[in-house]
Amino acid sequence: MPTKRPEGITIRAVGERAGVSAMTVSNVINGAGRVSPATRAAVLAAIEALGYVPNVAARRLAKARATTLGLLYSDKGTPFIDSILLGALRASNARGLQFIARGEEALTREAAEAALRSLVQSGAAAVLLLPPFAELLSGSGLFEDLGVAAAAIATGQAMPDMATVRIDNRAAMAAMTAHVARAGHRRIGFLAGPQHFSVADERLAGFRDGLAASGLAYDPVLVVRAGFDPPAGAAAGRTLLDLPDRPSAILCSSDDMAAGLIGEAQRMGLRLPDELAVTGFDDTAIAARLWPPLTVIRQPVGDMAFRAVEQVLAALRSRTVEDRVVDFELVVRESVGLT
Amino acid sequence: MPTKRPEGITIRAVGERAGVSAMTVSNVINGAGRVSPATRAAVLAAIEALGYVPNVAARRLAKARATTLGLLYSDKGTPFIDSILLGALRASNARGLQFIARGEEALTREAAEAALRSLVQSGAAAVLLLPPFAELLSGSGLFEDLGVAAAAIATGQAMPDMATVRIDNRAAMAAMTAHVARAGHRRIGFLAGPQHFSVADERLAGFRDGLAASGLAYDPVLVVRAGFDPPAGAAAGRTLLDLPDRPSAILCSSDDMAAGLIGEAQRMGLRLPDELAVTGFDDTAIAARLWPPLTVIRQPVGDMAFRAVEQVLAALRSRTVEDRVVDFELVVRESVGLT
Repeated sequence: MPTKRPEGITIRAVGERAGVSAMTVSNVINGAGRVSPATRAAVLAAIEALGYVPNVAARRLAKARATTLGLLYSDKGTPFIDSILLGALRASNARGLQFIARGEEALTREAAEAALRSLVQSGAAAVLLLPPFAELLSGSGLFEDLGVAAAAIATGQAMPDMATVRIDNRAAMAAMTAHVARAGHRRIGFLAGPQHFSVADERLAGFRDGLAASGLAYDPVLVVRAGFDPPAGAAAGRTLLDLPDRPSAILCSSDDMAAGLIGEAQRMGLRLPDELAVTGFDDTAIAARLWPPLTVIRQPVGDMAFRAVEQVLAALRSRTVEDRVVDFELVVRESVGLT
Repeated sequence: MPTKRPEGITIRAVGERAGVSAMTVSNVINGAGRVSPATRAAVLAAIEALGYVPNVAARRLAKARATTLGLLYSDKGTPFIDSILLGALRASNARGLQFIARGEEALTREAAEAALRSLVQSGAAAVLLLPPFAELLSGSGLFEDLGVAAAAIATGQAMPDMATVRIDNRAAMAAMTAHVARAGHRRIGFLAGPQHFSVADERLAGFRDGLAASGLAYDPVLVVRAGFDPPAGAAAGRTLLDLPDRPSAILCSSDDMAAGLIGEAQRMGLRLPDELAVTGFDDTAIAARLWPPLTVIRQPVGDMAFRAVEQVLAALRSRTVEDRVVDFELVVRESVGLT
């Protein structure tokens, strides 16, 4: 059995894994020298894989110009907050950044602006935004006013005033819809997310694409908009399950909505997955723990957070914003029946 | 509707909420002056409730002697890592500490020691330990060798060489057992946790206490030891469900074990909660999202992490360790049927 020796993770070990010199690793960490994007990506992947953290001396040097990175998240519950925090911390630790986080309960522009100001007052020079704060803050001019760089994780589109790391939500939901249609479902319901999240409309558009690609007609009666949380999924799901001709499958725009829907279906005495197929979106911790285990679209949110840190630091240096689209994955479990 | 104005959260606002002067708040944050334990507790509660983060100037001052705090967690999955990270970050941010985290996959003493050394090499002067790292590292003498203070979150007992924040696991499981017995169950199964977690034995002892208090005999056939994860819960649960005279209720030592057990029961076609009552432990995000929603013992892990930061800093100053027992809560949902 190979034993892991974390105390041995040096800048050289990172370089070996990435196939570059220790000097190149150092340049990537400190943003110095000329490094190609491909090399930088390889080094960052190695840092992440090995869990590399600079030693005290290196960190003291770095501290002379230590940057504080802030994270703004929704206190109402971001289902993948665990992966986001671990990914952002790993990236911050590797660069000796100070990491601070702030939750905000109210999802209004006013509250989002106040929370952003508060992070900046606490020293943040760069901020990571979780949904729906990118949408709430974009176009406000506040980033420029405050002199802060921003990167948004898991948005629906690119944004003009901040870096973004996201999946192609539309293509993902189209792939899921086609998967469910291939399993034999013809009457497919859809729980769409709320209006102020940009991903919600992208996923709905993907659902329509997927139906069209499968030769199925779009029926607005089978689409309900709701919040991303379990009670909203339960209530919206009930609307569809109470239809005289109820759908045989319901696609949900989040794992939490799917959890609420499954509870409601169980309460009605439906046998899952035989009498109702359900799918989720995100692949949070609950997806594999629910019965039936959820077939989902997986967003690699831990990696996305790690990359967002890289992007927001680049934005801080260059005042340009990059839109990065990473791969999603269709994870097949048991909630669509055996196909 | 009251609007929250986070940018207005000053040291004075914290003082007002705690009923003390701004100077007292400052003393608590900086560990200066004489402050009674009750006052300190009130100030820390106010800091936590308001989400207070010191402003840049205050943080710059603090940075002159900035302390790095490390967290060591299991990469194999700590189900409540989200709450731990948010609680520890809130406490670190409020004090201007640098927070670093390290996951370790191997649950051996050797791996734990290497991971601790790695955190110290990265600058950590104090560390928070999640299960089972407290048990793996206690008695090694390594804290003294490395000159690092430690606080463990959610252990089964007090430890001689580190501070601890925990609930009374034995009393908690006794209360749960009595609750299930009061609902009319006479044949109660128990999924115990693995041997190298100190909480596992405490919870098993509590189960025996609860049976005795309810006038029920302890039957070793109904007790299975397993890991805290869902697949372990599924396999151990199957053992009990396959008994010729299977239990009508099964108490689990974690929410994840309960999730695995529920999946197994559903696979066998049992109707829950009527044909099988199931309970969890922790109150993680999945507890309310499963069907049926889990009746659980809630550990306030976010608060525990916040307090552990306070304790480990006190240990750093005074070289004494404190054992702190916080209240648990029995949260009744639907998984034991309507009682």
